[in-house]
Amino acid sequence: MSELKGAMIIGQSGGPTSVINASAYGAIKAGLDSDSITTVYGAANGIVGVLNDKLYVMDKEDPAELELLKYTPSSALGSCRYKIADPDVDDTDYKRILEIFKKYDVRYFFYNGGNDSMDTCNKISKYMKKVGYDCRVMGIPKTIDNDLFGTDHCPGFASAAKYIATSITEVYQDSHVYDKGQVSIIEIMGRHAGWLAGAASLAAVTGYAADLVYLPEVDFNMDEFLEDVSALWEKNHNVIVAVSEGIHYADGSFVSEAKTSATDGFGHAQLGGLAAMLADVVKEKLGVKVRGIELSLLQRCAAHCASQTDIDESFLAGQTAVNSAVAGETDKMVAFECSREGGYSCTTKLLNLSDVANYEKKVPVEWINERGNNVSQAFIDYALPLIQGETKMPKENGLPRFAKLAKIVAE
Amino acid sequence: MSELKGAMIIGQSGGPTSVINASAYGAIKAGLDSDSITTVYGAANGIVGVLNDKLYVMDKEDPAELELLKYTPSSALGSCRYKIADPDVDDTDYKRILEIFKKYDVRYFFYNGGNDSMDTCNKISKYMKKVGYDCRVMGIPKTIDNDLFGTDHCPGFASAAKYIATSITEVYQDSHVYDKGQVSIIEIMGRHAGWLAGAASLAAVTGYAADLVYLPEVDFNMDEFLEDVSALWEKNHNVIVAVSEGIHYADGSFVSEAKTSATDGFGHAQLGGLAAMLADVVKEKLGVKVRGIELSLLQRCAAHCASQTDIDESFLAGQTAVNSAVAGETDKMVAFECSREGGYSCTTKLLNLSDVANYEKKVPVEWINERGNNVSQAFIDYALPLIQGETKMPKENGLPRFAKLAKIVAE
Repeated sequence: MSELKGAMIIGQSGGPTSVINASAYGAIKAGLDSDSITTVYGAANGIVGVLNDKLYVMDKEDPAELELLKYTPSSALGSCRYKIADPDVDDTDYKRILEIFKKYDVRYFFYNGGNDSMDTCNKISKYMKKVGYDCRVMGIPKTIDNDLFGTDHCPGFASAAKYIATSITEVYQDSHVYDKGQVSIIEIMGRHAGWLAGAASLAAVTGYAADLVYLPEVDFNMDEFLEDVSALWEKNHNVIVAVSEGIHYADGSFVSEAKTSATDGFGHAQLGGLAAMLADVVKEKLGVKVRGIELSLLQRCAAHCASQTDIDESFLAGQTAVNSAVAGETDKMVAFECSREGGYSCTTKLLNLSDVANYEKKVPVEWINERGNNVSQAFIDYALPLIQGETKMPKENGLPRFAKLAKIVAE
Repeated sequence: MSELKGAMIIGQSGGPTSVINASAYGAIKAGLDSDSITTVYGAANGIVGVLNDKLYVMDKEDPAELELLKYTPSSALGSCRYKIADPDVDDTDYKRILEIFKKYDVRYFFYNGGNDSMDTCNKISKYMKKVGYDCRVMGIPKTIDNDLFGTDHCPGFASAAKYIATSITEVYQDSHVYDKGQVSIIEIMGRHAGWLAGAASLAAVTGYAADLVYLPEVDFNMDEFLEDVSALWEKNHNVIVAVSEGIHYADGSFVSEAKTSATDGFGHAQLGGLAAMLADVVKEKLGVKVRGIELSLLQRCAAHCASQTDIDESFLAGQTAVNSAVAGETDKMVAFECSREGGYSCTTKLLNLSDVANYEKKVPVEWINERGNNVSQAFIDYALPLIQGETKMPKENGLPRFAKLAKIVAE
């Protein structure tokens, strides 16, 4: 493959994670180190920054600040949820992207995100080919939801999983402190896939497991849920429940959105989310002390509790995308291939963007128990290696020292 | 003072913290090391364990497991919220306590807790004196609320403060990721005192401060709150708000409990707590994207983010209680005296139990700004030294390795 010389753009998209910036840093550093890449631009707020001609010049950043991206949560360049049109229907955005690419002689485009972002990558890549503009396009996976197809796991998942398992372990201590006991219901992200809720089961290796884990892969049944909580309460006078925000009834309606009148006699709108609602139902039906806890944004931004394995692999994904593109690859997403036999190892591979875009990977049914209220040992064996290693995040004044980028806009 | 030889009891009371076990370990270790103390008992669930004759023999524990108490959140011996009667009204409990003390030859009683626990200590001490039973009684302070009188600060506060400031710093990153902005409302514990909510201001030293901080020391005004959020929204299109769960209107009613019909037209019961309710009001009135986050139990049990300063000082408080009692002191609470001139230093002092019991220390009015929507630099100067130092908590399988006590019950 012939050498392609030109500038590169890295963009971040979708919901943030604790380590998306580690991938950005992997890509930026590989770009800065490469002879084929003339300038490294960071798109302000993902593809929106390209459309708005707002690109930050990474070459002008302090290298030490750039390196801190490894420990800085959320998307340092800014993110977006902008979905570009199908180019056959409306190619306005694509014409604009081409214009910007030409303006800055962009020959490499890297997009870091989840399913939608891989779709964006795929469309841009196809359009550039169609109009004959030589540009290599690579997707870098990212999502705490861990639902991207074809990769062992997704950068970002492990750090969220580690935070969830750590928090469950700690809440377990707190919930067991009084002689009178408590039901604790912990709400975890994951609208369509239960990987994150399943991470609550990792606490089992500490001896402080969640007793019940409900995933969106299984239809939720309120009566069975109350039976399960009640049985455990009778036995232990203490129950830890982890629920995915995406659990739904057999008819597909989200439990969090349903008015629960049919089940519990309440008819008012729920404000406080699923955990608060389930806590209310348990209190009403079982008359026990109950606490609903929503991990909320914390689980996707708690970089102080990130997995160093996740940080290293996220960096690797970004770096591999750039190095592979410079070597001639295009139209691919970086993915992980892992082995757990005789110790954990992880290497990268490349998948066709068109094969991964818009397909959601769910927790295999065989990793969920028959009652549908917990995951199996196979899930733990899969996820536990990913949360190993403590972040080397530097602190200043006892608090995280995040990257402070100059963000000098290209002219 | 003559030597007093006999057994000791350490009990834990009230709501857990990340470091209450560090104090217990300080007391237990000093007891095990002392020639005057024959046996070290841990009361199961505080004073309830004494009343029920359920004492754990600490001498029989593995020393390595005991040392892990420094990094184990919540109350490893179990806690209670039992309030003993005034002995002049009903001395049943006191007679029973005396009986147990005699049974095990207990000559030292240490109680680790907040205001109520100091009151319990005080009453027991007075009763033992009245009946002529020689027993030294010492209080060890503990409360994330930081509202105990006479001490610079309370063990437990700093670790919660560190977690809160860390989480604010991280949520700040997450909230600023989209170009369209967001109002984030973070609900923090503290029913009557705003020390914990004030800790949100510590994030200012990272450059990622909470914009607005509301404490229960100030009457809350919903109209002013909406004005403040609105003004900041116009300016930055992003607002981080920290609120104490204990904020109340001028008439004393808690904002969290008030039906907000007068203010926002809603009349239904609030399930999801204060953050969800305020988020709802902001969304309704200002029409902006808003997220309510309740730090819930996490802030008092997140030992993985504890302050090593807090761990060390908590240990010191427990150790000092035992060593002082052995040296002849009784009827006292261990307190901290700190200097912040030319670096932070902390020493212990002893206060009379009768002087500290049942008095709540609030954030000084002069540390709150005139608008009542933030704390001043004086607050930051006070609290910042306390959150320094990272916990040395050991991990196993990437997760906290907490103490596992054998809990062998005395016969």
